[in-house]
Amino acid sequence: MLQPHIYVVFGATGDLMQRKLLPALYDMYKDDEGNGPYLILGVSRSSLSDDDFRTNSIASLQKFAKLDEDTATEWANKTLFFQSIGKQQASDFEALAERLDALEAEHELPGNRVIYLSLPPSAFRDSIEHLADAGLNSSAGWTRLVIEKPFGHDLESARALNDFVHQYYSEDQIYRIDHYLGKETVQNLLVFRFANAIFEPLWNRNQIERVDIVVTEALGVGSRAGYYDKSGALRDMLQNHISQLLTLTAMEAPAKADADSIRREKVKVLHSIRELNLNDVIRGQYTAGTLDGEEVQGYLDEDGVPEGSTTETFVALRLFVDNWRWQGVPFVLQTGKRLPRRLTRIAVTFKRPPVTLFDGLGCNIVSNVLHITIQPDEGFSLGFEVKEPGSGYRVQTQRLAYKYSEDYGTLPDAYRTLLADVVRGDSTLFVHAEEVETAWKIYEPVLNTETPIHTYPAGTFGPDAVSRLTRRFPIYDES
Amino acid sequence: MLQPHIYVVFGATGDLMQRKLLPALYDMYKDDEGNGPYLILGVSRSSLSDDDFRTNSIASLQKFAKLDEDTATEWANKTLFFQSIGKQQASDFEALAERLDALEAEHELPGNRVIYLSLPPSAFRDSIEHLADAGLNSSAGWTRLVIEKPFGHDLESARALNDFVHQYYSEDQIYRIDHYLGKETVQNLLVFRFANAIFEPLWNRNQIERVDIVVTEALGVGSRAGYYDKSGALRDMLQNHISQLLTLTAMEAPAKADADSIRREKVKVLHSIRELNLNDVIRGQYTAGTLDGEEVQGYLDEDGVPEGSTTETFVALRLFVDNWRWQGVPFVLQTGKRLPRRLTRIAVTFKRPPVTLFDGLGCNIVSNVLHITIQPDEGFSLGFEVKEPGSGYRVQTQRLAYKYSEDYGTLPDAYRTLLADVVRGDSTLFVHAEEVETAWKIYEPVLNTETPIHTYPAGTFGPDAVSRLTRRFPIYDES
Repeated sequence: MLQPHIYVVFGATGDLMQRKLLPALYDMYKDDEGNGPYLILGVSRSSLSDDDFRTNSIASLQKFAKLDEDTATEWANKTLFFQSIGKQQASDFEALAERLDALEAEHELPGNRVIYLSLPPSAFRDSIEHLADAGLNSSAGWTRLVIEKPFGHDLESARALNDFVHQYYSEDQIYRIDHYLGKETVQNLLVFRFANAIFEPLWNRNQIERVDIVVTEALGVGSRAGYYDKSGALRDMLQNHISQLLTLTAMEAPAKADADSIRREKVKVLHSIRELNLNDVIRGQYTAGTLDGEEVQGYLDEDGVPEGSTTETFVALRLFVDNWRWQGVPFVLQTGKRLPRRLTRIAVTFKRPPVTLFDGLGCNIVSNVLHITIQPDEGFSLGFEVKEPGSGYRVQTQRLAYKYSEDYGTLPDAYRTLLADVVRGDSTLFVHAEEVETAWKIYEPVLNTETPIHTYPAGTFGPDAVSRLTRRFPIYDES
Repeated sequence: MLQPHIYVVFGATGDLMQRKLLPALYDMYKDDEGNGPYLILGVSRSSLSDDDFRTNSIASLQKFAKLDEDTATEWANKTLFFQSIGKQQASDFEALAERLDALEAEHELPGNRVIYLSLPPSAFRDSIEHLADAGLNSSAGWTRLVIEKPFGHDLESARALNDFVHQYYSEDQIYRIDHYLGKETVQNLLVFRFANAIFEPLWNRNQIERVDIVVTEALGVGSRAGYYDKSGALRDMLQNHISQLLTLTAMEAPAKADADSIRREKVKVLHSIRELNLNDVIRGQYTAGTLDGEEVQGYLDEDGVPEGSTTETFVALRLFVDNWRWQGVPFVLQTGKRLPRRLTRIAVTFKRPPVTLFDGLGCNIVSNVLHITIQPDEGFSLGFEVKEPGSGYRVQTQRLAYKYSEDYGTLPDAYRTLLADVVRGDSTLFVHAEEVETAWKIYEPVLNTETPIHTYPAGTFGPDAVSRLTRRFPIYDES
């Protein structure tokens, strides 16, 4: 039961809008989750009419969503509007404010507004300042501001950015999107851990040997070299997405299942992380190689990468959460581009049995490993030892497996979940300023030091040096 | 690598031989596990020639085994021999001994002998005495005696029978077959519990709410009423098979994975069982009903059941293992005939989370339940709570599942495993005299008291009264 509202999407002709936001909004409409009237006001520098915007949007939907054309047209005509922001002058924002008031009056909306800034970092501050100056930081209902990463590029810039935004919007109006948090398996981590009594007794330093979190991509830097070369894998993936997975995996049970209680526990994990040892950080950069049978070029040869760049396209990092639960358990975080396949996974390796009854019988008992896979196949699997049929005790590893898709079919896109949560005012799956800053603080030593850059051929699982941090390959098993 | 040996099977023209032993022996041969020469000497009162026995055996194999006829004929000619035991006089056993010596001499066998008594209880004592008198309790190699249940019908008779057999054969020569112990999942219980570090921390009164063990049959008493009416469900199933499953589930880690160490732990569990409370015992008898869409008659109308019989065809019983691990955890054992389907399962119900974070959100969190299924689909499954996809926290129960057959196809028959173990001299999967007697002792109070008999219609899960012992239905879920 969503309250009536209006989305104001900056960057309405951009890539994210076309690929993700429009399909998510359309699906919500189609499945009738958008109870109560709502409108979408696209905003960009282009000068389009409402009808142009509707036509373009239907064309995008035809590419990126499952479309019933009549329904889509009806929806577009009823829902989509456009307002140009022109040269982004104060007057343009005033015009936007007037248009919003007019639309709300015409459609009898109570003034609940989601302002979604799908903009490059460079356009960010000006837009926020102008929005506030035009009075668009409050309304007769609620006003919520959705912002996309990057949330700064180090601790100092993140603090500055948060301070800047807080001049105009209060923290509880701000919804920082980390789309990983909208994925079902990530949300399910809380249910998995705290609605099942069997995992909590195992979820500590007594039973767990190591936690690995990997986010691998087969893609290279593509057309994003301009942005990526200034960022690198640590800033692009590890500081945000992977750190979020880490906190959800490691946190204590929250007092309640609400955003504040959960955030408090996540921040507590970040505060408990021991200062990074630079010997536990391995940065890598891909060279030419073969991936899926195709030859691909090295990072330094990609379009737009500066000569001699030492930006990492891979990073592996071992850290320790110094609290009663986790003391001494390594958390190994890895992410990289041009690895053999796309995979996001939390792998929890349990300790071996203290006494291995079957060792004397020539069996090689391995540790139980729990895989929580976030993409591409969302699900869980638990490796466990079974007796091979036949006489005697030959032992093999098999997997108890659960795939979300087998029970639930295609899962809703993360953006759909997140957009609905913004309207509901549920910030559980969004990133608080405190989390952003605390996470940056952890990685400061790496950002402030020139650590060596190892190369790895595209199509391999990163530099060999990683093997000094973790046992690498079981993590990448099929299920 | 089995040593050369000879099987001497009493009851060689009987049902067990045809259905189970011959196929198991043939399969071992076919798969070339019978390394080293071995012979099978069939023994019964019939007067058959070796060739008659071979022809009959091939006919049986055609019914009960996957047969390559040429191979079977070659095998039969090489392997099968027959000796009549005539009127079971001393002289017949002496003739048997001579035949054995002759066969061993002719085939250069070292005198390793498996004497398998597939005989009715009435023929048991005489045969053993005659065997010993003819010197067939020892040989140049080893002599092992395989016996089938019933191992007595109460504590006193079991002790008497053990004492009798021990006059002629030492306990380490005796292999009491409980074919449940030959099933892969039962053996796998040891691997499951002690080769996987994740279960042991959960396997105790702190984490487990209840353990259910069920053995249900859809069949009625069939043509066995004569035997069954004197026995009943408790003697036929619970005292032996189910008690074995109980001890394997509840026992401590043995010092070693050998027969003695494991038996010691099993017996220790039996010794720790608190004296039964007769209020925790529910006996039932099936009345007419519908099963699989067919009308079936009640127990009292079955051929051969005496009028007014109060023999139980169903028994449910709650007991407690009073030790540090299990104090206060009910073990509920159930078995019965004419229940809706055939199922053998251990269901371990874990406690609910102490605090259910998601209760306030309208979720009904249920306990995690681990199913260890022994038949018909051998495997494991673990019920756990997952988040239903979509916004908010709706929680559902799904199952992590593992089926043996998916990785290993058809499993070897229990008899094949057990026969090979006898030859190897591994008595881990056989029942020791001490176990038999201790188990009888536990059930003495029920056997010595006339407890009420409840009726239940065929095709239902036993008398309604069972619901005062356990929550009945989740146990019977599909996987």
